[in-house]
Amino acid sequence: MQAELIIIGDEILIGQIIDTNSSWISSHLEDIGIQVKQISTIGDSEADIINALTLASSRADVILMTGGLGPTKDDVTKQALSKYFNSDLVFDEAVLEHIEQIFAKYKKSMPIENVKQAEVLRVSEVLFNKAGTAPGMWVKFMEKHFFIMPGVPTEMKYLMTYEVLPRLRSLPQRKSLIKKYILTGGLGESFLADKIRSIEERLPEYIKLAYLPSFAQVRLRLSAVGDDELILNKELDKFSDEIKYCLRDYFINDTDETLELTLLNEMEVSGLSLATAESCTGGLLSHLLTLVPGSSNVFLGGIISYSNVVKENLLSVKQETIEQFGAVSEQTAIEMAIGVKQKLESTYSIAITGIAGPGGGTEEKPVGTVWIAVSGLRETIPFKFSFGKLREDNIIRASKNALLMLLKLVREENQKNKI
Amino acid sequence: MQAELIIIGDEILIGQIIDTNSSWISSHLEDIGIQVKQISTIGDSEADIINALTLASSRADVILMTGGLGPTKDDVTKQALSKYFNSDLVFDEAVLEHIEQIFAKYKKSMPIENVKQAEVLRVSEVLFNKAGTAPGMWVKFMEKHFFIMPGVPTEMKYLMTYEVLPRLRSLPQRKSLIKKYILTGGLGESFLADKIRSIEERLPEYIKLAYLPSFAQVRLRLSAVGDDELILNKELDKFSDEIKYCLRDYFINDTDETLELTLLNEMEVSGLSLATAESCTGGLLSHLLTLVPGSSNVFLGGIISYSNVVKENLLSVKQETIEQFGAVSEQTAIEMAIGVKQKLESTYSIAITGIAGPGGGTEEKPVGTVWIAVSGLRETIPFKFSFGKLREDNIIRASKNALLMLLKLVREENQKNKI
Repeated sequence: MQAELIIIGDEILIGQIIDTNSSWISSHLEDIGIQVKQISTIGDSEADIINALTLASSRADVILMTGGLGPTKDDVTKQALSKYFNSDLVFDEAVLEHIEQIFAKYKKSMPIENVKQAEVLRVSEVLFNKAGTAPGMWVKFMEKHFFIMPGVPTEMKYLMTYEVLPRLRSLPQRKSLIKKYILTGGLGESFLADKIRSIEERLPEYIKLAYLPSFAQVRLRLSAVGDDELILNKELDKFSDEIKYCLRDYFINDTDETLELTLLNEMEVSGLSLATAESCTGGLLSHLLTLVPGSSNVFLGGIISYSNVVKENLLSVKQETIEQFGAVSEQTAIEMAIGVKQKLESTYSIAITGIAGPGGGTEEKPVGTVWIAVSGLRETIPFKFSFGKLREDNIIRASKNALLMLLKLVREENQKNKI
Repeated sequence: MQAELIIIGDEILIGQIIDTNSSWISSHLEDIGIQVKQISTIGDSEADIINALTLASSRADVILMTGGLGPTKDDVTKQALSKYFNSDLVFDEAVLEHIEQIFAKYKKSMPIENVKQAEVLRVSEVLFNKAGTAPGMWVKFMEKHFFIMPGVPTEMKYLMTYEVLPRLRSLPQRKSLIKKYILTGGLGESFLADKIRSIEERLPEYIKLAYLPSFAQVRLRLSAVGDDELILNKELDKFSDEIKYCLRDYFINDTDETLELTLLNEMEVSGLSLATAESCTGGLLSHLLTLVPGSSNVFLGGIISYSNVVKENLLSVKQETIEQFGAVSEQTAIEMAIGVKQKLESTYSIAITGIAGPGGGTEEKPVGTVWIAVSGLRETIPFKFSFGKLREDNIIRASKNALLMLLKLVREENQKNKI
């Protein structure tokens, strides 16, 4: 079963924003065994939209479309759809009420433009958008399925998750697709491939192995396509177990969870608590942790010690330490980790100090030099990283590696406590 | 003059990687007045590539293509091009020598696959790729221009910068394109449109106005196409000034800068410093600020007070305040803002406390309730927001609105200081 995406938005065609919607949609379609054949990104133009719809529906069975459903004049998607499907637009009372409620909630009077957002195609089934004012629509036309969604990522994700994917999952033409994930950390893609080469070579034709790398992590995905789910599952489990054993030193989880969630869950189960001391990462580490719902059961808080005065006053880093070794040093990282643990009365802590760039580098400590220390019930472990020249990259890589270091320490200390 | 992009790569269609190439190419084309009409993302399939070329060249004058030029079996772009242009592939001696040198430099023996990378279309002019092993190509065919580049971002950027853009700049058919930006904050797209309706209705045909919304902000873009840059500039300035005056209460900047950069620059010029106290945003506010290079000239640091104990111990929020009014309250937000200002000895501060969700809501204070306080030289201003149900959304919206509140306070107090 094949799908095509039509992404509408002038702001994408002028390169003002990077389209992340199509990647998100594609990977979620892939997850349920639907292959994306083409992504067409076009502007807010009636003729272009109609043309794209015509071509996409000549190639694929399912067409997903985002964007151009805003209230302003430059959004023309609905007019184009009305012509393409030869269907007029009608007011949907439930949608209008929902939009009015949103404005009422914010105690704002509703502009006339927003009334038009309650217009839907007569031929469509409305996909109710609880995350915003623009409704989604589902149209079956000439034996093809069209799903129309707003382009705001949170609204698109809401509609995909609760309205579109459930409908696609229940379409009859799909084959069974089974997947297993293994999340690893701390080893690059090609090194991992080297380690599991002999297993990979024995994989049967119908099982595929993909490497999905991100900062400091590689997720392995084993997928199998066939008719008998039971057999597929059994085969996948066998290979998955082999790979997990082979990569046990780099293993994070075999669920679909993030590193952050796995770490927080394991700490919560053991009754541990966490505090952070961030310098060059400036809050990202704490942000990644607190994106996880329920993180407050483990995470007590943190201190962002961007200036050295804050390192000394709030984290009790000794002035001599900074003078003698510098703010970016093993000693400072260790004192930050111990300082924040004491200050916030946590059982574990992470400290990060480094040079994110573009300025601040020296010959001895170039941009990208980052010291991380994790501190637990028994030990404090420092480690030096040498990342690259890009500020944002360095901030992300430092945060992710810090989480990996903490996961390792938590597991080691948990292991020792059991013995 | 119109262009289309053809982006080739299975890994994009399964959502494994986010395509950032097309955004980069589009914005650089836009800069020289070439409008991208469509971006087609397709897989490594000969038929799909030929089909995409046929359609793109029926709509646009310039076709830029990336991807599928690697040495491995799954890269079929050159075979497809050979058929489409009806041109055989020939070895290019200079390219082969270059590839051999790259392998020699890394002291690796060259796999046989890489020899094939020196094959180019006989009808093409080779675009020499100093950044990698796959050469670019330029083909003029049926009065259209085709530029073929590898998909590796650094190689694409090298070829665009040194080979493709200079050639496009010298094509005769280009028109002038002038743009002006106005970044606004704190008012939704449709409310803005309401306010400037009378100006928008007077815009001449050749001037376009676009609304580019993101969290708590809308960027307005005025663009004009024509022959005389001087006249276009003058006209745009006139309308831009009118809009800026009309939206002066929501004005952030008229450059291409972010809200964060504008705020930090204005604070730095006035010699101000900033500290943050974050509860529900968990570090994102500080992260957004510290993504800006040089932010350390203004930003001293912050305290992430996720637990109430941290609010009391580190921010000096009174226990009675939390008991009487709750951790999410006007009083707590104010005490957090004043507390962090004193603790970090800054002139300004931001405090955020709220319920990000999904848990923790009550009837009186549902998920999405956020109190923000900004504190400056003279005043501390609290404000209550009622966002929605989505955790990540609430975190971003709270952070962005806090920055807007601070910008407003900084400007007001700066104004008063001048009087």
